[in-house]
Amino acid sequence: MSNLIEKQISREEIFKGVALHVVRDRIILPDGSESVREISLHNGAAAVIPILDDGRVIMERQFRYAHGRVMLEIPAGKLDTPDEPPLEGAKRELREETGAAADRYTYLGSIVPSPALINEVIHVYMAEGISLGESHLDSGEFLDVEYYTLDELYGMVMSGEITDAKTQIAILKAREILKNR
Amino acid sequence: MSNLIEKQISREEIFKGVALHVVRDRIILPDGSESVREISLHNGAAAVIPILDDGRVIMERQFRYAHGRVMLEIPAGKLDTPDEPPLEGAKRELREETGAAADRYTYLGSIVPSPALINEVIHVYMAEGISLGESHLDSGEFLDVEYYTLDELYGMVMSGEITDAKTQIAILKAREILKNR
Repeated sequence: MSNLIEKQISREEIFKGVALHVVRDRIILPDGSESVREISLHNGAAAVIPILDDGRVIMERQFRYAHGRVMLEIPAGKLDTPDEPPLEGAKRELREETGAAADRYTYLGSIVPSPALINEVIHVYMAEGISLGESHLDSGEFLDVEYYTLDELYGMVMSGEITDAKTQIAILKAREILKNR
Repeated sequence: MSNLIEKQISREEIFKGVALHVVRDRIILPDGSESVREISLHNGAAAVIPILDDGRVIMERQFRYAHGRVMLEIPAGKLDTPDEPPLEGAKRELREETGAAADRYTYLGSIVPSPALINEVIHVYMAEGISLGESHLDSGEFLDVEYYTLDELYGMVMSGEITDAKTQIAILKAREILKNR
């Protein structure tokens, strides 16, 4: 393997907002020349594919302003701090967004959604043994909860109807794991 | 389905760099109240999972500065303009990054990697009938080309070794499609 490593020289703060925190770093490339990398800093996130005892999955339909349309996704959200255990974040988002709690969580691995632009890592869990309760959405958060079988969701991933990255991965991985049980 | 739509009131330019183009919009939420959305604008991208006649896949190992580590990914890159046909972008990135050209492309659907933060859509293709040539990397681009079977890559997705979102999805979808042929 060749040397591919890029080293930081300095960092400039560009913009710290509510959602994006942009920095611009001067770096040294593998060939010794200088370049610049702009990235947005992120606490990381947790996502959960909640599977009811009858096999249906709890999904969310919400408007994604950056895309100007409603999207079907699994429950997910930012970690409160970079140090929050991702499973705690997954439990919180599941409870707040759908009102559900789960007896069992299976780790489905992590996802890097935008490797060139954001340092976000999403930790994905499959939740089972679910009891339903009341949701408590954050202020400014609007979503519809819907239920689909895993087979229906698999069809929607393969047909291109579901486009969200974490949702595609969680559905495809959960299906593989449950098939081999 | 409830009304989930958010409407733009105004847009403020925050930062236009090489990789990130941040805007801050004032919006009206579904309940009529006002809020703010920060997003980064993006041309969109194309990615391709190139499968050789012997079943091996052409992969890239490259350093991802935002994550401080080397990652294994499929060939991919930004579209030159928002109007560039994604298949043209896929062919270009495959040729530039790996030197390969392909006889047949199968569309694997689109991916929204970061629905809350970036308006990027990645269009994913499976390429077959591949002939190898010489790569021509962009200035400042460094990567190693490596070859793996689809079974090896599937194992690396399920074990959590491959984390990049587009790469996980392309591997899982290509495997489903080839299994059912």
